[in-house]
Amino acid sequence: MNAIDAIRKSFIFSSIEDDQLPEILKITKERRFNKDEVIMQEGDKGDTMYLVVEGEVGVSKSLTMKFGDDFRQTEKVLTSFKPDDHVVFGEMALIAQDNRSASIVARTDCLFLEINRVDFIRLIETNPRLGVMILMRLSELLAGRLKQSSRDIIRLTTALSIALSK
Amino acid sequence: MNAIDAIRKSFIFSSIEDDQLPEILKITKERRFNKDEVIMQEGDKGDTMYLVVEGEVGVSKSLTMKFGDDFRQTEKVLTSFKPDDHVVFGEMALIAQDNRSASIVARTDCLFLEINRVDFIRLIETNPRLGVMILMRLSELLAGRLKQSSRDIIRLTTALSIALSK
Repeated sequence: MNAIDAIRKSFIFSSIEDDQLPEILKITKERRFNKDEVIMQEGDKGDTMYLVVEGEVGVSKSLTMKFGDDFRQTEKVLTSFKPDDHVVFGEMALIAQDNRSASIVARTDCLFLEINRVDFIRLIETNPRLGVMILMRLSELLAGRLKQSSRDIIRLTTALSIALSK
Repeated sequence: MNAIDAIRKSFIFSSIEDDQLPEILKITKERRFNKDEVIMQEGDKGDTMYLVVEGEVGVSKSLTMKFGDDFRQTEKVLTSFKPDDHVVFGEMALIAQDNRSASIVARTDCLFLEINRVDFIRLIETNPRLGVMILMRLSELLAGRLKQSSRDIIRLTTALSIALSK
């Protein structure tokens, strides 16, 4: 897969016409990471989003909780992404500078396209028609994840109330 | 609070200049609901967003789960909103027609501004500069909620694993 393919197939750029793809390409930068390298660390400040061109990444979140006097810490592996998944990650950094919500590690040697917040904002402000198309997709992506999270919360809350009532 | 105030103070319209507020007002419709009336029902199809102008609403989600041969159903009240909270609800319907993720009931007689998806899409497409400003805020709102949900999931997962390990 090449850079233009990676852009075309990413959900957030999927409503863009082919002749506008170079506008996106212009604000991307190729980034290579070696196997096992940490691409982003949960909790760190971030202002970049990544599109996977080659390689596979793993996503994880840490769990820490105090229970009585006892602390338990663990790393929960959430999922892994391959280029064919056409995912982006770190996309929340395009909206507001914030802490990374998960850690991402390269599971193989990887090639990404990196887009940073300043360039992204400049693009959507100078080309608002393009901006509306991208932001609609980005909102859809976030809304879809939020729905999934809400379902998870309902299931976990119910399961917890049952576990505690035994 | 009047309609223009409700728009100005809503987070998703908060980056809009005063002289553009009438553009938003044009696509709103005043809607009154009586105390205890159901404004939206979880699971129903929806294509409208609401801004609270007067009154108070309650948000709830149903919990259903099978555990062994036993089904348990309950209604979980999540929160309530007053006009001073300057919230919108149903905003995910502006992005994609989808099922309502929660039920909303009028706790007092209410006055809302209703915006439907078709009018919203037409507004942001004919005025993409305005569209970018609104969609950035909408994305921020969704991203903020997603972060909160992720924190809840982590807490619930850990709590559940501890409850089950006892």
